[in-house]
Amino acid sequence: MKHFRNVDDVDNIQDLAALGRALKADPYAYRELGKNKTLGMVFMNASLRTRLSTQKAAINLGMDVFVMNMQGDGYTLETGDGVIMNGNTQEHIKEAAAVIAEYCDVIALRSFPRFESREDDYNEKIMNQFVELTGVPFINMESATVHPLQSLADVITINELKKVERPKVVLTWAPHPRALPQAVSNSFAEWMNRIDVDLVIAHPQGYNLASKFVGDASVTNNQNEALDGADFVYAKNWSSYENYGQILSQDDSWMITEGKMALTNQGRFMHCLPMRRNVIATDGVMDNGASAVVQQAGNRLWSAQAVLKSILESNF
Amino acid sequence: MKHFRNVDDVDNIQDLAALGRALKADPYAYRELGKNKTLGMVFMNASLRTRLSTQKAAINLGMDVFVMNMQGDGYTLETGDGVIMNGNTQEHIKEAAAVIAEYCDVIALRSFPRFESREDDYNEKIMNQFVELTGVPFINMESATVHPLQSLADVITINELKKVERPKVVLTWAPHPRALPQAVSNSFAEWMNRIDVDLVIAHPQGYNLASKFVGDASVTNNQNEALDGADFVYAKNWSSYENYGQILSQDDSWMITEGKMALTNQGRFMHCLPMRRNVIATDGVMDNGASAVVQQAGNRLWSAQAVLKSILESNF
Amino acid sequence: MKHFRNVDDVDNIQDLAALGRALKADPYAYRELGKNKTLGMVFMNASLRTRLSTQKAAINLGMDVFVMNMQGDGYTLETGDGVIMNGNTQEHIKEAAAVIAEYCDVIALRSFPRFESREDDYNEKIMNQFVELTGVPFINMESATVHPLQSLADVITINELKKVERPKVVLTWAPHPRALPQAVSNSFAEWMNRIDVDLVIAHPQGYNLASKFVGDASVTNNQNEALDGADFVYAKNWSSYENYGQILSQDDSWMITEGKMALTNQGRFMHCLPMRRNVIATDGVMDNGASAVVQQAGNRLWSAQAVLKSILESNF
Repeated sequence: MKHFRNVDDVDNIQDLAALGRALKADPYAYRELGKNKTLGMVFMNASLRTRLSTQKAAINLGMDVFVMNMQGDGYTLETGDGVIMNGNTQEHIKEAAAVIAEYCDVIALRSFPRFESREDDYNEKIMNQFVELTGVPFINMESATVHPLQSLADVITINELKKVERPKVVLTWAPHPRALPQAVSNSFAEWMNRIDVDLVIAHPQGYNLASKFVGDASVTNNQNEALDGADFVYAKNWSSYENYGQILSQDDSWMITEGKMALTNQGRFMHCLPMRRNVIATDGVMDNGASAVVQQAGNRLWSAQAVLKSILESNF
Repeated sequence: MKHFRNVDDVDNIQDLAALGRALKADPYAYRELGKNKTLGMVFMNASLRTRLSTQKAAINLGMDVFVMNMQGDGYTLETGDGVIMNGNTQEHIKEAAAVIAEYCDVIALRSFPRFESREDDYNEKIMNQFVELTGVPFINMESATVHPLQSLADVITINELKKVERPKVVLTWAPHPRALPQAVSNSFAEWMNRIDVDLVIAHPQGYNLASKFVGDASVTNNQNEALDGADFVYAKNWSSYENYGQILSQDDSWMITEGKMALTNQGRFMHCLPMRRNVIATDGVMDNGASAVVQQAGNRLWSAQAVLKSILESNF
Repeated sequence: MKHFRNVDDVDNIQDLAALGRALKADPYAYRELGKNKTLGMVFMNASLRTRLSTQKAAINLGMDVFVMNMQGDGYTLETGDGVIMNGNTQEHIKEAAAVIAEYCDVIALRSFPRFESREDDYNEKIMNQFVELTGVPFINMESATVHPLQSLADVITINELKKVERPKVVLTWAPHPRALPQAVSNSFAEWMNRIDVDLVIAHPQGYNLASKFVGDASVTNNQNEALDGADFVYAKNWSSYENYGQILSQDDSWMITEGKMALTNQGRFMHCLPMRRNVIATDGVMDNGASAVVQQAGNRLWSAQAVLKSILESNF
């Protein structure tokens, strides 16, 4: 694996997930692999899980790590072409990306969508510029449209918890007060489409994900119908793709409650976190033992370590 | 020592202080002890000494370290129970704490009082939630009511500098333009009560500390009387405990001056820092050789290293 | 080399530059040199290149590194003498500097000019206080008046790229919307004066640099004349030294264009970055292969590593 930009960079999802579980069982087995290799982690946005789990994964492999918060630590980046930079932006991404690559062997980037242009966001303009300009192995720590480190952790978690060979997995929209990216939902759907599960996506009207990510999933506007017999309930808010970046509904009947979980096949509740309690799901759902969210977050470490190990072995 | 939340977690204060001094003499003697162990340092508030000394202590013991500024790096935390999180808070402490523990072997937390509810603050609601939710060894880097890493450094400093077996130690209130926590003062009084010193606490009316921390100390509203013959003068501002979080006085006759130090037994001036010059104490006091504040701050490193070594040995 | 404050701390510039190139060829040759030595990097201002390159240089030498953003991570510093600190500043630089030195073996500081007093800035009041108060080896990561880590990287870059024994080097002012420090320009002129180049400085009227830094350079207000036959064009904005900190011109005819570069001897374009595109220089200049800015930034690593190696060997 040269880069880890999205699912298409992965030869075999289940092999990579299995590697994650093997590393979970023996975290320090490759402590020499990353010696004299530096991972530069660049954050355009806030991060807790990704920040700590990716750092820890690199350390477990013996790498050195830099963490760079572009806002605050560094300069405000310009990403447009041909711009006369006499305003608030201080440095062009062309220079910034190329320079960071001078000090790092692998670069990881978090850059959320800007919701200014769906075309730019869905062309992954910023991520692709970074990949092209740096020329070093790249890891996506959530881009405008996908969050593959999360999706790999989700695959690992489902593998650990599933009680049937082909579980029913429901990705359901849930309400939220702010306009959120589609990245986690896109990515989850895309990865689930490539492993052996029965995927159903439920959301209110107007919240269709891009068809590329929906793939072969069943789609419904009836949440209760979707939850019937589900083995996993993955709740997530996203803003509209069609009316790009808009909030079309805050309908709290879509919040996941213990009553809704009762419709499932003793299903496990999943969310990528951070999650607003009593908005996305109730305290009851989070605290009654059905929730797998902390296990998911814990698996972020093994997801990142599997990816880093593959990248180190392929590139150096 | 499983955790280091407060003085009650310490078996023997003088043994721990002696360990600190032994580490000061030989900082790298245990460079292998913390191998493959990660310390996660979580800051809800600003920090200079605690941040650097605790990090350095961990490195001296061979640990890996994460530093997480919750404000800025991560998400705004909710700490209330049952809250419908449709406002400004983005993640509940229940998830955040549990998740951080997935990536760390030991967690250290700084979380100042909020001054919204004395009961919540004095029940150490946030620290105790963190300890309970993470399930890993915990180090208090200043909580709502105590700052034990500072107090241990203060014990080490007094041991280094005392000229009599049982020195007279004066903790005196001093003025400050903002409402400050009682944590350093509480903690200093509590620790002094458990070692062999003659402790006097001086403050204006209305500034009594909670009786639990005052213990057997003499208390007076007459600062000059307290300073008479003192071997150590520990100046600190705190806001009122009785009128919780209020500023009742800014009386600058309580500022420590060279004239006041002349009342002492060639006493040494102490403060935890940061300290506002010419408000808490004059430039003259800080610069004339009587001040022990930099030595105190230096001992923060050995305090933290003694605590970390004890925690590593007890838990792993 | 005890400290690296400015060019006067350097015995032989070309020897130090040669060391940088040797380290570039063999980065990990001294991985044991910095063992059990900690570099404390203190930032009063934003940084990308300096932050990452200095960190990486220290890691390559086996050092441990702290990064401290004073704004945000720590407390607001007071630098005045005798101030009654009852306003916004929380800690005096006298304590902060002395305390940081308790935890570090080498201290590196970035502190830009304040533009409040030219005398204070040009006396390097803050840097000199830090050096004096800490008592440990010091590295200047850009002070009020100079940026010697950048200048050393510039020497390395010119050595790598020059096609004649004694190249013509032009330092030219260029427009910018904000009032910028003179530090990079001062420093570049000062270092060029000490190596074997033909130095010309071009700027609009009112933008003379302090004569100490201009040295033996030719100075002109005619940019085109200066560019004629140049081997290197170093563009940089600075605010006025005479009308201290003022913007006297935003004349965009001083922007470096492909047309201007055509006046040179196939000259290479240099800038310290961050650089505002189409304000300092056009996209064409940056993207047509004449630009050496990324190579310059890359050489910041070897500049820092050469300095750190010299400091470690001289002091420990």
